[in-house]
Amino acid sequence: MTRKTVTVSGVRIGEGFVFIAGPCAVEDEELTLAIARDVRKAGARILRGGAFKPRTSPYSFQGLAEAGLKILKKAGAAAGLPVVTEVMDTRHAALVREYADMLQLGSRNMHNAPLLRELGRMDKPVLLKRGMSATLEEWLRAAEIVRAGGNEEIVLCERDVRTFESHARNTLDLSGAVRARERAPWPVLVDPSHATGRADLIAAMSLAAAAAGVDGLMIEVHPHPEKALSDKEQQITPAEFARIASDVRAVREEMAAKSLLAAA
Amino acid sequence: MTRKTVTVSGVRIGEGFVFIAGPCAVEDEELTLAIARDVRKAGARILRGGAFKPRTSPYSFQGLAEAGLKILKKAGAAAGLPVVTEVMDTRHAALVREYADMLQLGSRNMHNAPLLRELGRMDKPVLLKRGMSATLEEWLRAAEIVRAGGNEEIVLCERDVRTFESHARNTLDLSGAVRARERAPWPVLVDPSHATGRADLIAAMSLAAAAAGVDGLMIEVHPHPEKALSDKEQQITPAEFARIASDVRAVREEMAAKSLLAAA
Amino acid sequence: MTRKTVTVSGVRIGEGFVFIAGPCAVEDEELTLAIARDVRKAGARILRGGAFKPRTSPYSFQGLAEAGLKILKKAGAAAGLPVVTEVMDTRHAALVREYADMLQLGSRNMHNAPLLRELGRMDKPVLLKRGMSATLEEWLRAAEIVRAGGNEEIVLCERDVRTFESHARNTLDLSGAVRARERAPWPVLVDPSHATGRADLIAAMSLAAAAAGVDGLMIEVHPHPEKALSDKEQQITPAEFARIASDVRAVREEMAAKSLLAAA
Amino acid sequence: MTRKTVTVSGVRIGEGFVFIAGPCAVEDEELTLAIARDVRKAGARILRGGAFKPRTSPYSFQGLAEAGLKILKKAGAAAGLPVVTEVMDTRHAALVREYADMLQLGSRNMHNAPLLRELGRMDKPVLLKRGMSATLEEWLRAAEIVRAGGNEEIVLCERDVRTFESHARNTLDLSGAVRARERAPWPVLVDPSHATGRADLIAAMSLAAAAAGVDGLMIEVHPHPEKALSDKEQQITPAEFARIASDVRAVREEMAAKSLLAAA
Repeated sequence: MTRKTVTVSGVRIGEGFVFIAGPCAVEDEELTLAIARDVRKAGARILRGGAFKPRTSPYSFQGLAEAGLKILKKAGAAAGLPVVTEVMDTRHAALVREYADMLQLGSRNMHNAPLLRELGRMDKPVLLKRGMSATLEEWLRAAEIVRAGGNEEIVLCERDVRTFESHARNTLDLSGAVRARERAPWPVLVDPSHATGRADLIAAMSLAAAAAGVDGLMIEVHPHPEKALSDKEQQITPAEFARIASDVRAVREEMAAKSLLAAA
Repeated sequence: MTRKTVTVSGVRIGEGFVFIAGPCAVEDEELTLAIARDVRKAGARILRGGAFKPRTSPYSFQGLAEAGLKILKKAGAAAGLPVVTEVMDTRHAALVREYADMLQLGSRNMHNAPLLRELGRMDKPVLLKRGMSATLEEWLRAAEIVRAGGNEEIVLCERDVRTFESHARNTLDLSGAVRARERAPWPVLVDPSHATGRADLIAAMSLAAAAAGVDGLMIEVHPHPEKALSDKEQQITPAEFARIASDVRAVREEMAAKSLLAAA
Repeated sequence: MTRKTVTVSGVRIGEGFVFIAGPCAVEDEELTLAIARDVRKAGARILRGGAFKPRTSPYSFQGLAEAGLKILKKAGAAAGLPVVTEVMDTRHAALVREYADMLQLGSRNMHNAPLLRELGRMDKPVLLKRGMSATLEEWLRAAEIVRAGGNEEIVLCERDVRTFESHARNTLDLSGAVRARERAPWPVLVDPSHATGRADLIAAMSLAAAAAGVDGLMIEVHPHPEKALSDKEQQITPAEFARIASDVRAVREEMAAKSLLAAA
Repeated sequence: MTRKTVTVSGVRIGEGFVFIAGPCAVEDEELTLAIARDVRKAGARILRGGAFKPRTSPYSFQGLAEAGLKILKKAGAAAGLPVVTEVMDTRHAALVREYADMLQLGSRNMHNAPLLRELGRMDKPVLLKRGMSATLEEWLRAAEIVRAGGNEEIVLCERDVRTFESHARNTLDLSGAVRARERAPWPVLVDPSHATGRADLIAAMSLAAAAAGVDGLMIEVHPHPEKALSDKEQQITPAEFARIASDVRAVREEMAAKSLLAAA
């Protein structure tokens, strides 16, 4: 099996190690722009940010929708970063496609076949997150639905499995990421922000994922996590992100220099 | 908290005990009609059947779409049964609404907020299944999204939680159904077909659910399960359904007659 | 496969439906005697009670040890009930055997092979609880270790599996009890007290288990659960037990009278 | 909280990074001696090996008992390695103590309070594995039972939690190891052999654990895994172990040299 490289507006995923970073939700223009510049400087190559946030509670912040997409695109352009954002409704796919360089299919929609099919017909790369209770098989079948539609530009993103343990939000299934990379040709990232749901576990899990040989990380960054409109507990500051990115690079460079096992 | 009764084209859910039955998927007209008559005779009061079956594998049978909706409605009418069928895509909600008496939101879409909102704006009752890895809290919040849209005609349907155990497909969370009934005013059904995924466990789990005090059961019925185009392992024959329905009624009547605890 | 009946000092398990009841722990003589008489009157045929309670926290009440065994035996004799109590240490097996009519192997020791082997060499029936995270296969293999030692007087007792859900302590795996009864010749009981960990779920889960066709229930009873030295949240009063036992009997009699499916 | 260092016959755990390696079970003298020399050369500082293997199936290889303890001690002495082996029965604790430098309390006995107490009274360090379905809290309470007996020489060893996922035997809970190190003063190791149950996942999970900042690894090594009398699927060869140990050291040295986050 030849490993596949996916190119997102010039950024190659699957060669070297890539960081995707940005806020959970696009909250306003100034903030998003500042985050974009900060994560760019720290080494991120793609900007993430949510425009549609129809969270489980109907009374929470729901995102800025198209206004959010515009801000995200503008912030990415200003910082020189392509952008990825989530599509949550088949009716919005074409709209999101206009603004985004990469389309995210989130954990809650991994079993949403109509949406998978819609993204399979698009001409933009797809970031396919693993469902919270999805088996590895189901995740790979979801990728197959996208691919069957004609879109082979797929990047997998591992999160976690739900367990009885409550010291973190869920349990990061790192061996699942390793297995996904063996089973499928697509690059595999890890999202330690959602997998742990705890800011103070992100450094350790990022280093762990990098050492285990995945192709990159997607991390939520916000200058004031305690004021964030969503996911307060798991966002880290730009300074923390810079430190983690630097440490991860050091480990990966050492692994590459000495041809360590998981660096293949 | 006053318990709510939901009326589906004349059939009341939340008073007495109701059976919803029918095939996993609408396969053809003759078959669907035969099943409708058989389950009606055996005591079912609502006919179920899937028209959209975008299953995880992109190469499996995908359902008959609108043709399936027409057949389902016709079969229901012939047998004197209102029908319930699943909506899987916000773009299809209006279409499904034309044919169905009740709109099902399936397990894989319990976290699909746009779809929940769409059903919240409809004037038909919603059958809201619990997600496979959803907590009780998340399930009730999903119901709240529907309700917040203005639609208060909600029926909850318990399935299962994913566990390491593999003797059944998943583990039926019967205490979850009991707790849902305490926490929310809506009627709560149990779906032993999907919860167990095994035809030979359906009788025992149906009797158990009835004795635990839920408001009804939804069961998949097919005259030739081994030839079914989907869910072969969990469909039961009309004769088996008739036996189960009769036994469940006997238990419920005894419970009502003697005012047993869970009959409240 | 012929189903096996296990006789505990004259009480037959596997014919009809049996109730085992009693306090979590033997706390003092007067209390234990009162409970024994109350549960006997309500229909229990075996008295349970723990003498060794080496619970996870080293600072909790640890049980009365041999003094507790004496009290339990005395209370059972006064009420006309054989007694079952847990063995937790291979060094105590012979001692417990002197006082108990049936030896319980608890959930935390289901994987404890030396203890299973010790009970396999004893001449008293064994009540083998399913481990909290044990698969059905592992549970049946544990029974096989007992049987391989020469002791074929085994009664299985289902509890729960650990899941992410927290509305109850764990998730009662009722289909596991049904499958255990299909796979092995031994009687299968359900312990709704430990499976749910919540007093207010015990009535519903007891009725459910009875309707699903198991051979009996083991329930924790204490006159003042709020003052109990252990398991406060899951013990029910003698009056509550009497009501549940009466309701369960009504359901089982109806099932037997009409030869309902799960009554086989 | 000051982190504690535990010394096992001169080998310090909790300073730097330690490898414990050896066969699942002690099978014969020649083989054990060869493994001991090989893992010593590859960097292991403690030899592991099981003498009592009362596995779930009563018909499998059960270990060599005292003969196995003698071989293990002899092999350790010849290679210059202290030895660790599992105690499974309170009645064997004194015997195992005679031969072993460190006493292992295995996953299946983490809830076995009498055995925890017995080890708490011993004058040898304890290697306390996390139970397969144990929460972090329960694991730390088990350590507290040992400590309450007077033995403060405790090393924790993380394994896995049981989940629905089956691509590996279980799911390694790496964030659990990180949290355990935050919550308790004792060193924390990871056992990738049992956590994954798959030889081909051990390299990636070892590197991941090392990068996440744990204090060492315990790995099963056998020259001919396919001929091993137990745990065939998860043992790796001495050559594979040497490669992993070398790679892990390279990562840890880089982390120490640059003071990376998780190296603290």
